[in-house]
Amino acid sequence: MSEKHNIFTKNAVGRFIPKTINYEKIIPFQGLGKYKPEGNKFSPKIPTNIDYDSNGDKKVNSLKEALIKSGLKDGMTISTHHHFRNGDLIANKVFDIAKELNIKNLRWFPSASFPCHEHLIPYLEDGTINRIEGSMNGILGRFCSEGKMKGTAVLRSHGGRYQAIQDGDVKIDIAVIGASCADNFGNANGVNGKSASGLLGFALGDSQYADKVIVVSDNFVPFPCVPWQIQGNYVDYTVEMKKIGIPEKIISGTTKITKSPDRLLLAEMTADFCDATGIIKDGFSFQAGAGGTALSVAVFFAEKMRKKNIKARFARAGSNKYLVEMLEEGLVEYILDGQTFDLEGIRSMQENSNHVWTSPFTSYNYHSKGNFASFVDVVILGATEVDLNFNANVVTHSNGYLLHGIGGWQNCLFSKTVILPIPLFRDRIPVIRDEVTTICGPGELIDVIVTERGIAINPHRKDLIEKAKKSNLQIKSIKELKEEAEKICGKPEAIKYGEEIIAAIKWVDGTVIDVVKKVI
Amino acid sequence: MSEKHNIFTKNAVGRFIPKTINYEKIIPFQGLGKYKPEGNKFSPKIPTNIDYDSNGDKKVNSLKEALIKSGLKDGMTISTHHHFRNGDLIANKVFDIAKELNIKNLRWFPSASFPCHEHLIPYLEDGTINRIEGSMNGILGRFCSEGKMKGTAVLRSHGGRYQAIQDGDVKIDIAVIGASCADNFGNANGVNGKSASGLLGFALGDSQYADKVIVVSDNFVPFPCVPWQIQGNYVDYTVEMKKIGIPEKIISGTTKITKSPDRLLLAEMTADFCDATGIIKDGFSFQAGAGGTALSVAVFFAEKMRKKNIKARFARAGSNKYLVEMLEEGLVEYILDGQTFDLEGIRSMQENSNHVWTSPFTSYNYHSKGNFASFVDVVILGATEVDLNFNANVVTHSNGYLLHGIGGWQNCLFSKTVILPIPLFRDRIPVIRDEVTTICGPGELIDVIVTERGIAINPHRKDLIEKAKKSNLQIKSIKELKEEAEKICGKPEAIKYGEEIIAAIKWVDGTVIDVVKKVI
Repeated sequence: MSEKHNIFTKNAVGRFIPKTINYEKIIPFQGLGKYKPEGNKFSPKIPTNIDYDSNGDKKVNSLKEALIKSGLKDGMTISTHHHFRNGDLIANKVFDIAKELNIKNLRWFPSASFPCHEHLIPYLEDGTINRIEGSMNGILGRFCSEGKMKGTAVLRSHGGRYQAIQDGDVKIDIAVIGASCADNFGNANGVNGKSASGLLGFALGDSQYADKVIVVSDNFVPFPCVPWQIQGNYVDYTVEMKKIGIPEKIISGTTKITKSPDRLLLAEMTADFCDATGIIKDGFSFQAGAGGTALSVAVFFAEKMRKKNIKARFARAGSNKYLVEMLEEGLVEYILDGQTFDLEGIRSMQENSNHVWTSPFTSYNYHSKGNFASFVDVVILGATEVDLNFNANVVTHSNGYLLHGIGGWQNCLFSKTVILPIPLFRDRIPVIRDEVTTICGPGELIDVIVTERGIAINPHRKDLIEKAKKSNLQIKSIKELKEEAEKICGKPEAIKYGEEIIAAIKWVDGTVIDVVKKVI
Repeated sequence: MSEKHNIFTKNAVGRFIPKTINYEKIIPFQGLGKYKPEGNKFSPKIPTNIDYDSNGDKKVNSLKEALIKSGLKDGMTISTHHHFRNGDLIANKVFDIAKELNIKNLRWFPSASFPCHEHLIPYLEDGTINRIEGSMNGILGRFCSEGKMKGTAVLRSHGGRYQAIQDGDVKIDIAVIGASCADNFGNANGVNGKSASGLLGFALGDSQYADKVIVVSDNFVPFPCVPWQIQGNYVDYTVEMKKIGIPEKIISGTTKITKSPDRLLLAEMTADFCDATGIIKDGFSFQAGAGGTALSVAVFFAEKMRKKNIKARFARAGSNKYLVEMLEEGLVEYILDGQTFDLEGIRSMQENSNHVWTSPFTSYNYHSKGNFASFVDVVILGATEVDLNFNANVVTHSNGYLLHGIGGWQNCLFSKTVILPIPLFRDRIPVIRDEVTTICGPGELIDVIVTERGIAINPHRKDLIEKAKKSNLQIKSIKELKEEAEKICGKPEAIKYGEEIIAAIKWVDGTVIDVVKKVI
């Protein structure tokens, strides 16, 4: 029987938020920088060496044995991470075992899910899994949007996920950490071995705070497994599996920049904007993802930097061959890498101590004494929709379906300048709306929208508006851009929703910024 | 007024332990692997980015300002670390400021103290500092032994210190972390800069669990300070000081092996023993400190390894030029370094990713899911005294004075074979006793005593006894060795103690293994 949501509060971005989600009290978003946490970090039980083999051998025969020894039972929270991306074989295996053991009502707490996890649909249907708290891409999102998941999904940013673990909002019973290299003690990394993905930062919080921690690898080395991105001192069991992932789906051989002229235009306009407004300067920093457009932005940045004979102090990444080239050419002093997208990224991380692996703790956790996302001069992000107040959506499409995760998107909004290069419409559906389907980020944090028909600057960024005036950039108001799109595509029709809430969208501080309703 | 200790329990090694130390209930040592902690790790307050500058600038003008902003007040616990060894200028400065502000009754919680901290004696006298919980070498130890410290000292091993912080046995109010390299955000390391000491592992727990964390450096770099051995996300304030340490006292230019023929003999006998008993074999691991004898042991090991054409999987260090040579020659695959003793150690750590910096968490914490000290095949340690049951002392001299810290000594006892190369007597005082002055480590963990007149093997190590039989090693019983010494030096007289307890010696699990009494 699903939860009734009948007491609602309007939160600081005007969205109606229920009193509980999954029968737990939630806090509505209170505005930027308003909610201050009280209380203390989650405190795991104190372990003792007495309970662990003095030779450091924590190896058990199978993942099943490890899960049973970890006390797998109904209602538990099981975490996995997404470093294997669409090549992950572990999460599916975990729930195959749960099903086999007739365990019910699990909460799956992945750092992200991928199309390969479609495999879990039957378990969501039969109640093995109650709900997913994590991103829901593609088919899982559709399933959730149609109201078929028993519990309510909860989506968090990468930083918000660390925050939730650290603060005890989510208590992980069993963390299963897949690693491309490990030793029997549980020291592990993602940088060596055939299933290498670069690093294991997304699993850090899980290792530190979960009650039981299982490390699974297809590549065991004698102690010490170095670097120990995951420290065996947090690990309970280690498991050897023949195959933990499909390498070509874990990581691409090489990342390629977009060939789409539309996207290239957006990328070039973005780089021109950064140049004209003085953002590209000696010692600056930037973050550009591995999406086609963002990738191209970095390439345009590199060109401009060469011309100006300047270098960036650091690039925050999603690393790839283009960024690695910039590092090796000396255009970038450091890559602070959150996840590695291609083989060149992995090689560079193996070889170059200026290619630094990070975690959501160092980069994104809002409940710490600062994090470095806010030091980044400029970040280039995507969005599915933006509204007239620059509020943006990154999880649902305009048809109401929940099809994407938040990733680091919310965390990156704290960068000094946030630019969204987006087409004015997609499939003849305008991207700039009166209201976005789902608010994932408040407009106060979004500075610039770059479209193929002009650039809109958030009115609160008077400094950028002034600088842009002196350029030949095509600056328009966001309202003008919206009207242009509607002239071409017509005003979009409203979507029909059911009343049922199928997902909650958390803000970086653990409050709820929006909810997603069932599509009917 | 000092604490009355009048209710005593006999602990598992036969020592009488009071009910409280510094008015806090303590747990007597219960035997090896007997005491299991209950409860949860210490949970620090949840911070929020809201309270920290979004540019990551945490710089304040002076250490005084940082201490005031951290809320320094009477009765607080202030931690510092000892990476600057006898060249440290920070701890003294902290208490100069406390004195200036008329703060009283502080608990100083250093990871170790050095002769340079003699400067603090007046503050111990006038009550600025109530007590030291940490090692007390030389003059501070004498001061403490004479009953002049207001509170009771508590000595912990490096691992025990991490355990105490993690478990909340010691709640640190303000941690002051000196670093040879830092950025404004508080990322810091000990590997770069003129005050480099290699790493900051001893300050890791302090950064993770202290209420307020201050990073002090004489070498600020723009973000990011990499490697971030201390993560700025844990740091509240950063302070630039012109001079944080005296480089030549922080680290020696080069470490030199002993020229003493007596010590060289002990070192050679130790290496011969390891060879004859099969401990030196391909893929083995060892730990030898930077003391004269231990250093020489490593050099003898190297010779034997070259002859056998084998290599060690790892050396646990205290790194120095000899170990670095072994790493670079390929005799050792990894150095797992806890502290760096010379410039070659620092260079190697900067250059070689197989020279790994560790912390008391990964290496020594007994309240974790294992630690790697127990994987080490053989460890060479010192001792001031050993008794007939192989119980050993490392903190007091036979005259009763508390003159040394525990360091990693207790933690290293968990190695697979523990060897103490010690002279049979020092200054005509026999080292093997009926009873040691202070028990720091239970005899069950100590396997071999190497003296210039023969080697004693703990009877429980039947395997080693068997192997040694086949060698030409001069094996004796520990009783025989004791009697030989007494024949030469006479039976030592008993020392006279007062009743007052001046220090408690913690075991790695937080229980009290012994106490030290005032010398009269």
